[in-house]
Amino acid sequence: SPGQTQNDRMGFVILVLANPHLSDTILTMNIEKPTLLLDTLRVRNNIHRMAEISRNQSVRFRPHFKTHQSIEIGEWFREENVRQITVSSVDMAMYFAGAGWSDILIAFPVNILQIRQINELAAMVHLGLLVESMETLEFLKENLTHGVDIWIKVDVGAHRTGIGWDQTDVIAELAHVISQSPRMVFRGLLTHAGHTYTARSRDEIRRISNDAVDKITNARNSLQEKGLAPVEVSIGDTPGCTLGVGLDRVDEIRPGNFVFYDLMQLQIGSCTPADIAAVVACPVVARHLERNELVLYGGAIHLSKEYLTLENGQHSYGAVCRLTPNGWGSIENGVWVKSLSQEHGIVRGPKEFIQQVKVGDVLAVVPVHSCLTVNLMKRYQTLTGETILTLEAGEW
Amino acid sequence: SPGQTQNDRMGFVILVLANPHLSDTILTMNIEKPTLLLDTLRVRNNIHRMAEISRNQSVRFRPHFKTHQSIEIGEWFREENVRQITVSSVDMAMYFAGAGWSDILIAFPVNILQIRQINELAAMVHLGLLVESMETLEFLKENLTHGVDIWIKVDVGAHRTGIGWDQTDVIAELAHVISQSPRMVFRGLLTHAGHTYTARSRDEIRRISNDAVDKITNARNSLQEKGLAPVEVSIGDTPGCTLGVGLDRVDEIRPGNFVFYDLMQLQIGSCTPADIAAVVACPVVARHLERNELVLYGGAIHLSKEYLTLENGQHSYGAVCRLTPNGWGSIENGVWVKSLSQEHGIVRGPKEFIQQVKVGDVLAVVPVHSCLTVNLMKRYQTLTGETILTLEAGEW
Repeated sequence: SPGQTQNDRMGFVILVLANPHLSDTILTMNIEKPTLLLDTLRVRNNIHRMAEISRNQSVRFRPHFKTHQSIEIGEWFREENVRQITVSSVDMAMYFAGAGWSDILIAFPVNILQIRQINELAAMVHLGLLVESMETLEFLKENLTHGVDIWIKVDVGAHRTGIGWDQTDVIAELAHVISQSPRMVFRGLLTHAGHTYTARSRDEIRRISNDAVDKITNARNSLQEKGLAPVEVSIGDTPGCTLGVGLDRVDEIRPGNFVFYDLMQLQIGSCTPADIAAVVACPVVARHLERNELVLYGGAIHLSKEYLTLENGQHSYGAVCRLTPNGWGSIENGVWVKSLSQEHGIVRGPKEFIQQVKVGDVLAVVPVHSCLTVNLMKRYQTLTGETILTLEAGEW
Repeated sequence: SPGQTQNDRMGFVILVLANPHLSDTILTMNIEKPTLLLDTLRVRNNIHRMAEISRNQSVRFRPHFKTHQSIEIGEWFREENVRQITVSSVDMAMYFAGAGWSDILIAFPVNILQIRQINELAAMVHLGLLVESMETLEFLKENLTHGVDIWIKVDVGAHRTGIGWDQTDVIAELAHVISQSPRMVFRGLLTHAGHTYTARSRDEIRRISNDAVDKITNARNSLQEKGLAPVEVSIGDTPGCTLGVGLDRVDEIRPGNFVFYDLMQLQIGSCTPADIAAVVACPVVARHLERNELVLYGGAIHLSKEYLTLENGQHSYGAVCRLTPNGWGSIENGVWVKSLSQEHGIVRGPKEFIQQVKVGDVLAVVPVHSCLTVNLMKRYQTLTGETILTLEAGEW
């Protein structure tokens, strides 16, 4: 109604008049509550850089879309000639299949309870699946109604899941059954060297990644000696792929996190602060000067409870930057999110910093793990104010 | 299309035939992917028990709806004559106002950037707000367009936020300004004794809660001595309210988590396993018998990364139960979710347990912190197969 509009306008004007602290940026961006800000230029740079790495190394680029979970951001990959993608669930495969992606790998051990949807997908797109047991393979043999590619999941040291890289007889037996099955094409060996996340320097990333590539290529060689060929190798972690370690010895890379990076990647050494493309803008709602703390509207349901351990032994749930007219500034020294409850984030920092911040200011929190933060926030706001939705926004 | 339906039916029949492991329960519940199962009888019992506690102690029951975030579950509180509710955000207040709740307290320090929505709400419902600084109070004085209740947030030891209970001059000054403002009614003092969460026994809960009630009632007495009256007291944590500690000395209780409880409440001592009303049903997708581990489809985006530290020093992201024809069984001894990535949950347990579980089985994971799990899962499935949505499902 016209009355409503009038009220809205008046509320806005009053807000501006009564709170001179509010910076131009906040007003331009219209931030009122925790908001996932996206620097799209940085995103495009990150995509371009990884696409260049894959072109220079002549390796197939099959980016993992579980980080951004967005049809719109997916389109920016198409501009780099990406045609194959990785996802982490059947639902995510359905979402991107609906947006015209026709070559999709679900990089998660097959969940046989979703066979109906898997068959639907296999009828629509070129579908890749991950297998690591004879039980699952036998089930697929009986129940697949359309052709799929099969990758064997290999463990090269992360010990999350997969068959040990040195269990070559087990791997060969699976590969044999796959190649005998009319609805399955054996593609090769796939790993996620998640233990690069324990690295704290580029040298350490290189050492772990080289070791991981050694192991999976050894397993490949062993299969080929047993007469199975061709056997491709697919690897996936952002730290190793960013540094391009061993890519001349693999066929496919599947990094995902590099699209935004985050505090964890910064700590590992796989990005610089200027590569981080997503932060959560959080209003300041209270100050506790006596203990050098601020209270943010921004908690576990916005950032996730993923943390890093700082050198002082404390947990950090995020680093803190100020907003600027063009986005956000550099990470404030010695300022960190020290605890989270459902909607509260508690920031601690040097007295000089805490004293300068006022209730109603908005601070940018660099998330520890951007994949989890995106999944919680469900939608992005670009620096020019546009909204970008994800699968989780439930509006597609 | 008819062809589609035919395929669906066939897929289902084939699944049943090819996997004799699948229990009747799984088929009845139609669980294919991580599913938040709700035992509605337990929920109603939990609600009834807390309503009884409040009636016996003649204290106002203003349950916190941030745990369930559901209009439908909210209705079950109305059946216990609950008419006042607590929420943790302006959005959540809007959601429940839209469902006919007309007395809503936003138990979070006022976010002045949402003044427009706050005024909209104050025009619609009897609205309560939390204030803990003169800055915020001055802003509200200038910008409120409708009447609201104001509670002063007091810190009785949790040190998350609020004014220290012994800062009686500061509290009195705020109370004075509130009572002078035509659009504000000073209601009293509010606290969340979140430090009861450090308790590991009922005695410890009682000790911490009694101390918390001592402190906030001291602050109240001090205000009344200064001539401010009436001054109500509102407290809120589930451990203290479940045990009814000090309720004869307060006016209002605002517990939320008790509606489902969880592993954290079990560890604290505020519930029994039979009170826990929500679990996440997760398909088993891989087994690693050599290290006594299972891989679940169910990760950080389903359970949240909240953890407990077990007696053996390991982190636990959840306990594990089997599904039964009526819901889920007791917690399996020595079985726990030892790590989570985005979609994977790694379960470790005794060899005898791990060996009995097969790929395609479904296990129930008792979440560490049900509030965060509900926020991630966004919808419930009852034991009779109905779906219940939350605010986050985005379909209301």
